[in-house]
Amino acid sequence: MAGLFSFRLIATEGAARAGEITTAHGIVHTPAFMPVGTQAAIKGVHHDEVRAAGADIILANTYHLMLRPTAERVAALGGLHEFMHWPLPILTDSGGYQVMSLSPLRKVVEAGVTFRSHLDGAMVELTPERAVEVQILLGADITMQLDECVRLPADPADIERAMRLSLRWAERCKRAFENAPSGRALFGIVQGGDDERLREESARTLVELGFDGYAIGGLAVGESEEVMLRVVAATAPALPAERPRYLMGVGTPADILNAIGRGIDMFDCVLPTRNGRHGLAFTRFGPINIKNARHADDPRPLDPQSRCPAARDFSRAYLHHLFKANEALGGTLLSIVNLFYYQDITAGARAAIAQARFADYRAEIAEQWAAKRDLE
Amino acid sequence: MAGLFSFRLIATEGAARAGEITTAHGIVHTPAFMPVGTQAAIKGVHHDEVRAAGADIILANTYHLMLRPTAERVAALGGLHEFMHWPLPILTDSGGYQVMSLSPLRKVVEAGVTFRSHLDGAMVELTPERAVEVQILLGADITMQLDECVRLPADPADIERAMRLSLRWAERCKRAFENAPSGRALFGIVQGGDDERLREESARTLVELGFDGYAIGGLAVGESEEVMLRVVAATAPALPAERPRYLMGVGTPADILNAIGRGIDMFDCVLPTRNGRHGLAFTRFGPINIKNARHADDPRPLDPQSRCPAARDFSRAYLHHLFKANEALGGTLLSIVNLFYYQDITAGARAAIAQARFADYRAEIAEQWAAKRDLE
Repeated sequence: MAGLFSFRLIATEGAARAGEITTAHGIVHTPAFMPVGTQAAIKGVHHDEVRAAGADIILANTYHLMLRPTAERVAALGGLHEFMHWPLPILTDSGGYQVMSLSPLRKVVEAGVTFRSHLDGAMVELTPERAVEVQILLGADITMQLDECVRLPADPADIERAMRLSLRWAERCKRAFENAPSGRALFGIVQGGDDERLREESARTLVELGFDGYAIGGLAVGESEEVMLRVVAATAPALPAERPRYLMGVGTPADILNAIGRGIDMFDCVLPTRNGRHGLAFTRFGPINIKNARHADDPRPLDPQSRCPAARDFSRAYLHHLFKANEALGGTLLSIVNLFYYQDITAGARAAIAQARFADYRAEIAEQWAAKRDLE
Repeated sequence: MAGLFSFRLIATEGAARAGEITTAHGIVHTPAFMPVGTQAAIKGVHHDEVRAAGADIILANTYHLMLRPTAERVAALGGLHEFMHWPLPILTDSGGYQVMSLSPLRKVVEAGVTFRSHLDGAMVELTPERAVEVQILLGADITMQLDECVRLPADPADIERAMRLSLRWAERCKRAFENAPSGRALFGIVQGGDDERLREESARTLVELGFDGYAIGGLAVGESEEVMLRVVAATAPALPAERPRYLMGVGTPADILNAIGRGIDMFDCVLPTRNGRHGLAFTRFGPINIKNARHADDPRPLDPQSRCPAARDFSRAYLHHLFKANEALGGTLLSIVNLFYYQDITAGARAAIAQARFADYRAEIAEQWAAKRDLE
């Protein structure tokens, strides 16, 4: 489907995989974590820091960018890479999830979804064909099909209806994508809620259609961690080994490692930046809520051995002060710390899989993360 | 007064001077612009960018830091340089200006000023001795005397009263500073509102007391640019050539160049970061309001020949989008652009004075700034 897009497996350990996605804008080492640049910017963080953290792909969002600044404007300005001055690979989410979570008025019919823009209240139609067109205009290296995402828990009939609609939309997206410039990839999205049978059917049907990669959508939408991992474990084996697998919107470092252990290659999540802005640092020692009063006099950095300068150079007392004083620099520094940590986690997983010690690696990190309830 | 603190003139052209301040934390090349780090952070900008811009000194604020995180806490954490991880020189403002502008309830008496904290409403006393003590605890390379700042226009009697009180406080600050660690400098502050006679008297009396440097305070507080420059022109000649002269809180690039032409060596101002956050970029082509709709489709960078990567790498269309989308990165990037530009202006002035072409340099910049009303 796409000449310049390819995936190769480098190593496996049980279900866990290390690999390499080649795109027209460079290589993505998997397992990969994609920082979220919803509106063509990683919130509060300079691109240079995102690259320094080690990200070799970011995610941007069809729904937001089609409304503002519009896909046509981005295309006229040379596409998203040129527009935002990000030379490495970009994946664009299709917009289905945002239509579900952001639009106050929306109507899903066979043709597509109609929603009221959260910006100006205008009615906007997003069909599978338009979702693909927008992403081609944006110039994404990896395009996602339009899908219908259902919050969990949900009525089983509604889950099945949305799954089957997403499959029909997958087919239409594939057809619409036939004229995409070479080098672009299209991923299908497995739906089916918490029903493993539906998930397997969705995966099988998508594989028959044939995509460059496969995502598992409709998770991290209200279900427990246990349900999420059960669905991932049931779905991943139904996907072809020779294509990348992407678990959308997940998650904590522990979630990511657990999903890698079940065969997932790609992740995106707002947690590192959102939590960073709210004062929660992800570190080797587990999560640290820097706003807690116990840090006010602590001269220690977050982690003196971190690869991240912000984690080494600034004391916890200073970071605490920045949050207490409402200085935006605090959120920026913690977002940077967290982006580095997420890249460390996936880089560590890659190295561990290559050395067949992933199980140990995951156990080590899980131990550090025993204090995980600080996340809440 | 301070062994490791010195100032030497390198070149002069008319009243304009280029020089070098040596401090325990490094050299400050003058004319110098000091980015404002009120609460021990330059708003929205990573320290690395402040250094990359070329700042070799920053300003922090006694009033804010004594309230939060407190001077004693900063001292216990190794002083302000260590606390905020800024290894270069720091000047701390004394707090008089902030007491005037921020405190809803304040009472100025001979002993000092009593004010209600804007944070928790507690009553706080700031005497000249306490202002010096706080700044010694912070570890400032340059300490400012406590003064009383009066908004203009003001009653002449009030201007004179505040000027004479500030002189008595100057004497008390000097006495309190006698036990400061070596290498620290203390600057006196000339007051006297828009009255040149009072300004000269204030300057003369301070010089008789003897300080490491002299500031002109109580300007940029409501008076016209013409009044400000007239007062500067009347005051600077009353100050000794062999000491640095600092014009507090000024100003636009044009103000700074005009004041350099009248013999000023040091400046601080929130304009580069505050205007940056609000979408106004300072460039070689004058001010650019990036939120203006005309930039929405403009692929050009702010200045392709700028020394500042943010001014070269990002299109006006992208910067415009970031502001429209309320992405904090927009304010950060424009703040960086502006900090670079302010350093360019003072570095350009230094080079021009050394080559005896400062008058031409100022005229060139003034021409670029003909569109200055965009500032409003």
